[in-house]
This record gives sequence, structure tokens and C-alpha cells, in this order.
Amino acid sequence: MKYPLINKITLTAFLVLLPFARTQAQTDPLPSWNDGAAKKAIVEFVKTTTDKASSKFVPPEARIAVFDQDGTTWVEYPMYTQVSYCLDRVPAVVKAKPDLANVEPFKTVLSGNREAMANLKMPDLEMLVAATLTGMSVDEFNTEAKKWLDTAKDPRWKRPYTELTYVPMQEVLKFFRDNGYRTYIVTGGGQDFVRLYSERVYGIPPEQVVGTAGGTRYRYDKNGKPFLLKEPKLLLNDDNAGKPEGIHLMIGRRPYAAFGNSIGDRQMLEYTQAGDGTRLMMLVHHDDDKREYAYGPNSKVGTFTDALMAEAKKKNWTVISMKDDWKRIFAFEK
Amino acid sequence: MKYPLINKITLTAFLVLLPFARTQAQTDPLPSWNDGAAKKAIVEFVKTTTDKASSKFVPPEARIAVFDQDGTTWVEYPMYTQVSYCLDRVPAVVKAKPDLANVEPFKTVLSGNREAMANLKMPDLEMLVAATLTGMSVDEFNTEAKKWLDTAKDPRWKRPYTELTYVPMQEVLKFFRDNGYRTYIVTGGGQDFVRLYSERVYGIPPEQVVGTAGGTRYRYDKNGKPFLLKEPKLLLNDDNAGKPEGIHLMIGRRPYAAFGNSIGDRQMLEYTQAGDGTRLMMLVHHDDDKREYAYGPNSKVGTFTDALMAEAKKKNWTVISMKDDWKRIFAFEK
Repeated sequence: MKYPLINKITLTAFLVLLPFARTQAQTDPLPSWNDGAAKKAIVEFVKTTTDKASSKFVPPEARIAVFDQDGTTWVEYPMYTQVSYCLDRVPAVVKAKPDLANVEPFKTVLSGNREAMANLKMPDLEMLVAATLTGMSVDEFNTEAKKWLDTAKDPRWKRPYTELTYVPMQEVLKFFRDNGYRTYIVTGGGQDFVRLYSERVYGIPPEQVVGTAGGTRYRYDKNGKPFLLKEPKLLLNDDNAGKPEGIHLMIGRRPYAAFGNSIGDRQMLEYTQAGDGTRLMMLVHHDDDKREYAYGPNSKVGTFTDALMAEAKKKNWTVISMKDDWKRIFAFEK
Repeated sequence: MKYPLINKITLTAFLVLLPFARTQAQTDPLPSWNDGAAKKAIVEFVKTTTDKASSKFVPPEARIAVFDQDGTTWVEYPMYTQVSYCLDRVPAVVKAKPDLANVEPFKTVLSGNREAMANLKMPDLEMLVAATLTGMSVDEFNTEAKKWLDTAKDPRWKRPYTELTYVPMQEVLKFFRDNGYRTYIVTGGGQDFVRLYSERVYGIPPEQVVGTAGGTRYRYDKNGKPFLLKEPKLLLNDDNAGKPEGIHLMIGRRPYAAFGNSIGDRQMLEYTQAGDGTRLMMLVHHDDDKREYAYGPNSKVGTFTDALMAEAKKKNWTVISMKDDWKRIFAFEK
């Protein structure tokens, strides 16, 4: 069948003019960013790596951009969201196993003493993680965690945690995707946890979430139906050196752009930069104590040491100042 | 800017007629398949799950189809391709460490005695795998394995292994992708190995290859440049129950369609079937001793036991007969 109403000339004109019309209509892809070195670095990078005439052109299949989550795409202070989830789950865990009520660290968590909780050490946290995130099926975990995500609220903004994403970073994610990049979350947080909302919150499908991952075990229930049991066995500790290791395991390609905000992202940025051609490495700096938080080199979350700042300068990693580079932070603000 | 040469009517006509023209031009998506239950099952499944009017409609983001590799998308008999690679690498390994020449299993491999090699036991093979696939950087491994893939030839067909893929299965992969499914390889073979050629050979990008995976360790070379060292540490044994576990780890969604050919794929098919809605489970049966191979329930590769056949019947898994269902097998045949 031919196209009876269209002759070849109008068809060609349509196809030729459409992209031009699009270019004309193009607006600022990063409206929540102030003009400055950070915004310029992002726009230039995307422009040159997607320009076929550029020596820095990156073919579409190789366009991978990775984003840390906590402190990079959403609020992490004063406590990682997933840690809040684990703490909130403790009463239910103790209800199922009452003996735990008098055992640390459960006792401290049940006391409600925030200061004591904040001082829990790594082995305590690991016990809490094992008790609250493992020992159930993937489906059970998903149901519980989704319920919590729908109802729990951040104490400062009184909003669901999933509303605490940064608008400027959402714009970056979209800008990369609009230019053929596949965007991945590469987080120290739990892979199964982040996958529950990544599509809805970031437009990133579950299979593009790389996170700290525990093993599962294939089991059958009493009706012979198979399920996956979440085990307290760490497969991937997706932080520090674990980030490039996780990227290799889960993606198998070196990213062209990497965004982080702390020493836990250092190796991911190094690994990105060690590739051929042009690469983009950026760090969000939390220096805005009015609109969000300003936390220094000794912060328990998102540690941004002086050494990291020096390394960023030396290696040409661009530091994003929340205070100076971002016009707005949250979508619920005007 | 407007489109000066096109008025609204021609534009609308063009947009309305284009899909219709496409439908008219539609041809058989599986030309290498004989008509029969297997072909019908595939076509029906894709048609109903992508038809918005159907109760079995699957939204695009959930369209995941998984494919075992060895024996499902390419030849696995009499020896997995990657095992051939390991054996071929042994002389280079022994050259670097001459003491190994008198140690088993290296001694047997160096003897060239195919029968003795075929009788190597699992611990021997694990030693060979550790010696030939680990202890080097990811980049070094990639370089060596690519070189081998470009030059090594299958003894029967005298062609590169990557030409021994099944045309009917290539058609299935394309048919699924053309209908919005993301196709994944889920293989007991090494993830890093398969990723080297998956894009070129199957049109499947590296990030959509789930395979048996060892750990890597982030290291720096003497110039301070980071690299990933392949370690003899198993992270994921992607066979049997490891397949659903690997699918959860790497994809995080339950597939809607699963193709396998042996008892190693049983759990993957079970897991697929245990999901809601309509699912497709298929097994390639190697029953063609003329054009390829026919191997029975006691074969060392692709074991297809009588129990598996009974299970397939009971659970409505469709068995593909290479002999009866496939018109042609390889692209290099007419």
C-alpha cells in the first residue's frame, strides 16, 4: 500500500524539518540549575558525547551514566532512609521473637532513645539488617517495605521519603536519558529496597539498580510453589571499591559519567575516569544548611573529607554546591 | 517554526496510515520454524501478551524473556564452548608456571588425550577454571578470550563457535524484541565470557547477560591506574536453583517467558511459571542426530531426563523438537 495523500516531496520535507523544529523548540534541560561550572560541565559533556561530528562521540550502546543515591539523588541526613526502615521494623521482629526484647541492639532500638540509636556500631547495624531484611521471602519483604514507603515520613519535612529527591538531579537523569544514556542507580543501599520505588521515583527500572545485595535461596512452600528466601549472606557490598566491582558484575561496562557525594563514591569516580575518551565525574557537596543540610568531613553520612575535596580538584572532578548551583531543591517547594 | 510544506491533513494521514502500511507488510516472524505446537505457542504468547485488548496483556516495562545459552541458543555438544576455551588456555598457563606441567589436571590436559579430558571430574574442572579464567585483570581476560573466539573453530563444522547459533532461536529473540520484550541470556556459562560476544551474536547487550559470576577485586597498577582483578571466588553459580536466584539478583523481575534445554533450566522455568498471568515455558530437545546431535538422558551436557520430559508434559511446558520444529538450524546452511 502506498500513501495516496502524500507525495514524496512533502514526506521528505516533513522528515527533514521535524528534527529542526525540535531543535528550535529546545528549552533549558536543567532549569533548576544556576549557570556555573557544574551546569556547564553537564551540558557540555552530554552535547559533545552525543555529537557524531565530535571526536568525543560515544556510541548509543555505550552510554551508561551511574548515580549514587543517598546524598546524591535524595536526602540522606541525618540517617539513611533504609536504616529508618530497619529501625521501624524492629517492633514487629521482636513481636515475632519476644526473646530479642532484652538483647542488644534490639533493646536500644525499642527504648526509642535516638541518641543511643545513633551510636550503634557496625556489628549492631548488621544484626538489625539481618533481622529486618532477611529471613523472609522476597515477596514478603516487598509487601512490608512498600507499605512502609507509602506511610513513613521524614521527621523534618513531614513528607514521604520518596518526595525528598532533588529536582536538579531528576533533571540530570532525564537529560541523560533524553540523550540516549541509560541511567543506573549504584548505591550502598539495599538493591531490593531501592528497586521497589526506582521506576516511580527516578524513572529507573529495577534492572538498572545496582546496590548492596544479599543472597537468596530458591525454596518451595507447602503447596510446592517456589519462592526466593532472603538470606543473611552478603553477595555485594556496593560501597567504596564495591561500587566498581558491582558495576562490573551487574552492568559489565564502564560508565561514561558518574555522580556521587562522598568518599564511598571515590572508587566509582576513579574507575569511570580511568576509561578512554571523555568522562564526567561529579560530586554533590552538602553545603546548604538552610534549604537542606551542611555536613562536614566528620559526618556519619555522606562523608566529604578535605582529602576528597583535594582529590576532586586534582583530578578535575566537578563539585556541585547545593547552595550555589541549585535554584531549588525539592519538587514540593515552589 | 511551523511545517510550511505540509498541511494538517496530510500530516494526519501520514501518521494514521503508517502503522497500517506496516501491518500490511507483516511477514512470518519465525520463517525457520515448521508449523506446529511449538511455533504456535510462541506466536500466540507474543500476540496475546502485547495486545492491549487482551486480559493477558503485559505492560512493556514488565516484558522480560530469558534464554539459556548452551544447547538453547547454540551448540553445546560434545563440550561447552567455554570449557574448550579453558582447555586451550592451559598451555599458556603452564608456560607461565612450568611446575604445573606435572600436576593434575594440567598434566592430563597437556597430554591431549581427549578421552581422559572428557573424564575430568568437577574439582579438576574447577581448578582449570580458576587457573584459566581468574588471576588476571578483566581487560587481560577480555583480550585473550576475544582472540580465542576470533580464531578457534568447532571440530565438526570447522567454523567459529559464534557461528553455531540456532537460526530459529535467533528469530525468537528478534521476534520478542520487536514486540517490546527485553531478551536476557541466563546461562550457567561465565558471565564475563558470554558478554564478549552477546551483542554481536545475539543482539543482547552485556548488561542483559546473567551468568555464572566470580568476584573481582578493585586494584591499582604501578602507575596508580585502577583495574579489576578476576578472583577465584564464586559469587553466583547460575545453574539449577542459581538461575532464579541470579535472575532476582541481576534483573529483579520475574520473566514472562523462559527457554531452556536441560535439567539445569528446570527451576528457571518453574520460577517463571509461578508468576501471575500467562507465561511461556519452553525446552529445546536435541533429537536431531543428522543435522546436529541427539543426546539422551545420560548425556554429560544438556541432560534431558525422562523425569524432565514428564514434568514438561504435566506442567504444560512446550518441548521444541529440533528435528521436527526447525526447518533449518544454522545460518551457514542454505
